[in-house]
Amino acid sequence: MMECIKLAMKGKGYVSPNPLVGSVVVKDEKIIGKGFHRKFGKAHAEVNAISDAEKNGYDLRNSLLYVNLEPCSHTGKTLPCTDLIIQKKIGKVFIGMKDPYKKVNGKGIRKLKAAGIDVKINILRDDCEELNKFFIKFVTKKMPYVSLKIAQSIDGKIALNNFSSKWITGKASRKFVHELRNEFDAVLIGRNTAEYDDPSLTVRDVRGRDPYRIVIDANSKLPDKLNIFTDRNKDKTFIVKANNCKPSRSNDILVNLKNGKIRIPDILKELYKMNIASVLVEGGANLFSQFAGTDLFDEIYLFLAPKIIGTGISSFGDFSVKDLSGINTLKLNYTRQFDQDLLINYKNVYRNNTGYR
Amino acid sequence: MMECIKLAMKGKGYVSPNPLVGSVVVKDEKIIGKGFHRKFGKAHAEVNAISDAEKNGYDLRNSLLYVNLEPCSHTGKTLPCTDLIIQKKIGKVFIGMKDPYKKVNGKGIRKLKAAGIDVKINILRDDCEELNKFFIKFVTKKMPYVSLKIAQSIDGKIALNNFSSKWITGKASRKFVHELRNEFDAVLIGRNTAEYDDPSLTVRDVRGRDPYRIVIDANSKLPDKLNIFTDRNKDKTFIVKANNCKPSRSNDILVNLKNGKIRIPDILKELYKMNIASVLVEGGANLFSQFAGTDLFDEIYLFLAPKIIGTGISSFGDFSVKDLSGINTLKLNYTRQFDQDLLINYKNVYRNNTGYR
Repeated sequence: MMECIKLAMKGKGYVSPNPLVGSVVVKDEKIIGKGFHRKFGKAHAEVNAISDAEKNGYDLRNSLLYVNLEPCSHTGKTLPCTDLIIQKKIGKVFIGMKDPYKKVNGKGIRKLKAAGIDVKINILRDDCEELNKFFIKFVTKKMPYVSLKIAQSIDGKIALNNFSSKWITGKASRKFVHELRNEFDAVLIGRNTAEYDDPSLTVRDVRGRDPYRIVIDANSKLPDKLNIFTDRNKDKTFIVKANNCKPSRSNDILVNLKNGKIRIPDILKELYKMNIASVLVEGGANLFSQFAGTDLFDEIYLFLAPKIIGTGISSFGDFSVKDLSGINTLKLNYTRQFDQDLLINYKNVYRNNTGYR
Repeated sequence: MMECIKLAMKGKGYVSPNPLVGSVVVKDEKIIGKGFHRKFGKAHAEVNAISDAEKNGYDLRNSLLYVNLEPCSHTGKTLPCTDLIIQKKIGKVFIGMKDPYKKVNGKGIRKLKAAGIDVKINILRDDCEELNKFFIKFVTKKMPYVSLKIAQSIDGKIALNNFSSKWITGKASRKFVHELRNEFDAVLIGRNTAEYDDPSLTVRDVRGRDPYRIVIDANSKLPDKLNIFTDRNKDKTFIVKANNCKPSRSNDILVNLKNGKIRIPDILKELYKMNIASVLVEGGANLFSQFAGTDLFDEIYLFLAPKIIGTGISSFGDFSVKDLSGINTLKLNYTRQFDQDLLINYKNVYRNNTGYR
């Protein structure tokens, strides 16, 4: 199953909003075929693994098939994988997790069992769920999976008061952020960050594809000279605006104002409609603050640089609480060191966001 | 040598400002005697290890002696350990680190070698230096070793603006803080913390002895009803005051004001004179801020609670810098999890504080 997960990861950045799936066929304790879902709309992992085994000259009868997600039983962009598995007389199927997508959701398992195939489910389930956290959120909640990426000093400052601090963290941390951008469908930033930092938000330090750049600019005031409007990826820039603004650029996302403000849920719903399954929020403080204390985000990537800034811009400075008992509680997930920076990953357990367990 | 360090640790809290020392005697690949420095002024580790071996009926000739710190060669409160080692005809001595104390500082090693004993030094030196970080700072810099203990939300807030937040971190973290208090000679807090939190600063959740409580109150305005003035440890409370205040309580530490303020180096120098080798600074923000960007502290114990506070009191809120290139850089030392809290330990590498390497 770990091999399936590894294979599945090769599809990162290319299959969304489809799930990441890898599959392995085993016979006589030997792997005879491997496959993964390579690209949205293309063949499923099981199909690729089965044809790989056949290409290698194997007969699939009584072989074992491993796959991290329940095989599909419906006809979507490809024929149902369950039918192929049954047709090839595969003897036993090991499944990482049930497919939460309502057109599958147990039907694939039932179909295999009805055909007399031995099925084992929930193999390395936690890892399989982590692998497809974007997909699970997308199909169960009809909202994109949202991660906040915060780079701050140990005392919680993301910039000096004069904004004179583009990079707080070191090279190795920033390289990892480029890996993240390669995995997320879109990056979201606020107006101040776009204007003061003038970021590119592209994948440069690692190989990969660039995410969509979603920028909130309610009243369409951002200057045209910014990188997001002029660089090689300008077509991937989308501006979130109040729907009473005149659409001025082709890539506008128009939303209703509520009490004169753009609300985060309204942005996320629009992104869902655009088939964006995952969003990396890269600041600034005002935008982070709008997520604090809500179930609108799923995860935080908190980078702590070994610096003390003191007076400066607090990562969640526009958020406030009356007492500590009422505040959002995060779950410490893992830590990882990048030179002298520390990455701390938290899951938001304000509610069970995925709703899947 | 690890066994020596483990033995030495048993003296924590009781030998200061002496070093923590453990010693083991080995013969025929078997430990025949163990000892450690138990209490300030009492027998040294080597003496205890040697008499333990003799009590066990062993002849010490040609045995091996391990000790984490260079044996003393001068007559202090006890006779020189080198003389005893030579007298007992021990064959070989393994030493963790040279004693930085100027009355020893290599003289013990030379004396052993001159007597024909084989001496190996710098065995697990990093661990031995970490073990005696308090002692090293105390004897080389004539200042106490200073650690800042900060308990904050992930966004760097140590309290809400209304101070209504005594404990941000969980039980397990607080228990570890009690372990720290048992190791440090003194705890230092500012006036606001004393008044608003009214802490006890005692060792309660673990077995141990209470540290001195040093409280800064320049103009002697703290109310008499506070825990620090009334509880079972009131004799261990010392108030740092301007020397133009009338001494009102027996335990005053009077310092000169500079520009109307008490300066941290002046406090630390007074603590050094009191034979206080280690100080745990427990807040608040104003006091932490006075240490930021200086070489006056050696280490930070940063506890991150999995909470977002937003508007609140920043851990170093009264400190400020003009640009990031000029700020204090910390070295990430280790992390440790306490339930959902994360402890991050940083060393201050602003300058090489110990001056010992």
